[in-house]
Amino acid sequence: MVKKKFLQIPYGTKDILPGEARAKREIETGIINNFAVWGYDEVATPTFEYLEIFSDEGAGLLAESFKFFDRSNQALILRSDMTKPIARMVATRLDDGRLNRISYLANIFRYEEAQAGRQCEFSQAGIELMGAAEPAADAEVLALAVSSLQVAGLQDFTVSLGHSDFIAGLLEEAGLNAAQAEDLKDIVLSHNMVGLETLLSTLDIKSDLQALFRRLLLLHGDLGMLRELKKTVGNDKSRMALENLEEIYALAEEYGVAGFISFDLGLIRNFDYYTGMVFEVYTPGMGFPICGGGRYDKMMEAFGKSCPATGFAAGIDRIMLVLARRDKLQTQTEWDYYVAWREGRLPQAIVRVMELRAAGKKTKLAVRPSDAEAAEKERERNFCRKLVFIE
Amino acid sequence: MVKKKFLQIPYGTKDILPGEARAKREIETGIINNFAVWGYDEVATPTFEYLEIFSDEGAGLLAESFKFFDRSNQALILRSDMTKPIARMVATRLDDGRLNRISYLANIFRYEEAQAGRQCEFSQAGIELMGAAEPAADAEVLALAVSSLQVAGLQDFTVSLGHSDFIAGLLEEAGLNAAQAEDLKDIVLSHNMVGLETLLSTLDIKSDLQALFRRLLLLHGDLGMLRELKKTVGNDKSRMALENLEEIYALAEEYGVAGFISFDLGLIRNFDYYTGMVFEVYTPGMGFPICGGGRYDKMMEAFGKSCPATGFAAGIDRIMLVLARRDKLQTQTEWDYYVAWREGRLPQAIVRVMELRAAGKKTKLAVRPSDAEAAEKERERNFCRKLVFIE
Repeated sequence: MVKKKFLQIPYGTKDILPGEARAKREIETGIINNFAVWGYDEVATPTFEYLEIFSDEGAGLLAESFKFFDRSNQALILRSDMTKPIARMVATRLDDGRLNRISYLANIFRYEEAQAGRQCEFSQAGIELMGAAEPAADAEVLALAVSSLQVAGLQDFTVSLGHSDFIAGLLEEAGLNAAQAEDLKDIVLSHNMVGLETLLSTLDIKSDLQALFRRLLLLHGDLGMLRELKKTVGNDKSRMALENLEEIYALAEEYGVAGFISFDLGLIRNFDYYTGMVFEVYTPGMGFPICGGGRYDKMMEAFGKSCPATGFAAGIDRIMLVLARRDKLQTQTEWDYYVAWREGRLPQAIVRVMELRAAGKKTKLAVRPSDAEAAEKERERNFCRKLVFIE
Repeated sequence: MVKKKFLQIPYGTKDILPGEARAKREIETGIINNFAVWGYDEVATPTFEYLEIFSDEGAGLLAESFKFFDRSNQALILRSDMTKPIARMVATRLDDGRLNRISYLANIFRYEEAQAGRQCEFSQAGIELMGAAEPAADAEVLALAVSSLQVAGLQDFTVSLGHSDFIAGLLEEAGLNAAQAEDLKDIVLSHNMVGLETLLSTLDIKSDLQALFRRLLLLHGDLGMLRELKKTVGNDKSRMALENLEEIYALAEEYGVAGFISFDLGLIRNFDYYTGMVFEVYTPGMGFPICGGGRYDKMMEAFGKSCPATGFAAGIDRIMLVLARRDKLQTQTEWDYYVAWREGRLPQAIVRVMELRAAGKKTKLAVRPSDAEAAEKERERNFCRKLVFIE
């Protein structure tokens, strides 16, 4: 009698089967190699960290994390994000005054309502560019995000680009208190039009600012919209945010990726640490972003350093899901040779198989004798292109 | 004021720094590609599993595991081994009557007294060959273990080869009860000569069997020793174990790896699931095995299937440590180009850098303007071979 749990895996996790795992590795290797071509050097951090380094996240994010105690009663967390651990690593191990271009491939853990494209354990590829506040750095990050998705085999996607200071400027101008500002962020995050109206009706703000708040969920558009908006905003912080986006966009044009960008000034990402441009990448038929990132100039302060930084992470599982839905994911591994042998001829088969492997051929060797006919069937069942039969 | 824990990582874990992580990925990619050349298809499993699937491990191993409860109070475990999860996956997802050749790269978690080469989180590359009881399967596993270490850059290592039935046969012959058998295994595992003498003095067994037990910690040798031993053993199970090893060894000769093998009939691995050949790979200057494996024909029964199986896992961190100690690990990444630019020339620099990247050159782009002299210094600090300066 087999216990039921022996045959199950925990909620929100998955097995990655033969062929599928190879396809995943090919995508990951392509992305990490492309990161290297752009000057980014890979790092890895522990799968779990002290809870403390994640404890200034929004309470919501922390509640969604896998937390546990080790044998000496230290509170640990399965990493729910890679940006924090990399900030910690750079602050403690790499602070040599150079720019740091860092890349990673990592599994991330969050309690989620599991569905296609959303799991409790998932895989991210990302980069962080640390030590530069310039628009050149943000443009590089945006261009590399586009390039990475292209390397993975995607073409039809849109980069929604916003700026955390645009909304911050409006909030300051309206004189919202912290609780009201938090309410407004939640409303924008959840695209709650009715909630927005209700909140606005309680505020005593000028009518043109009110009109701007009302448009917040609809501020999608091109450079023309951005420029029109610049004339409308009544505070410097928001205006400078728009100018910053204009500069980034101009460089994105040089990179040849501006065509992917659509501004969305109502974009708020589900992390409190952003301080500049923010972006999310969407593709038709997928309700979640496949990639997201932005600037976070204050994060390093928690680790005792002052260092501007910008970066992004792409969701490997989501990319694979999109490719699979478009029939662009090859999940059946193909092998070159199947080497089979008649009774007593295993030694000769081993010699042959090792010659083929030395030539780089992906070769399977039969583990028991057969005749040529049975061997041909086995070749087929094993997805090998050619049969070598040792008589 | 920075909280101390913000700057630390949990006991027994480590950051893998730029350059080091790239070297690690190169080794891992080499090994996983070699696995594919031998016909092994990669899989991945969740980082944590239900505790139950590991609960029939020896109590010692279970105590050394990272265990926690999820939000619905399910007992989970950070995987402490990959063989169990793969057995579960094969039993539930892949049982199609074919041989299954499975490979993986995975992080494994165990409470350990941390030291060089022994961490609480570590990385393994391994394979499982499921569905074959033949010596051909064991020989393939041994030969692939040797090939994998060679692909990783190692040459000077020894494969200690034993057989779990050899000792099991002696224990049965001596009529030891379960507690005594467990004592004896612990004594052999810890190479405790004094403990062995004490245990033997309490047993009422024939003098030639007693002599054999006394030699158990010393049964290292070549094929000659194996053959001599075959004449000495007084029970069929031990004799058949030796014959099985002879057959495996003969095939290892065909693979050209017999020169790496040294028999060790006292070899007991720290897992209870082995049922046939067992092996560990040692290299000078490293007190732990860098690789280990064996046959485990009964494990699948816990998952409701009957399926013979054999496999191995290699420790990536230990391999890297050995390579580093032999000065064979290149941990400084080298880049091809550093592209710098005079004030106002960033657009032209972006065009140039994208040409270089399109040609596959690993290229870093300056994020702020400079003159040619400063650019040359930056090139050097960034470990780039060539400078392109856009005037």
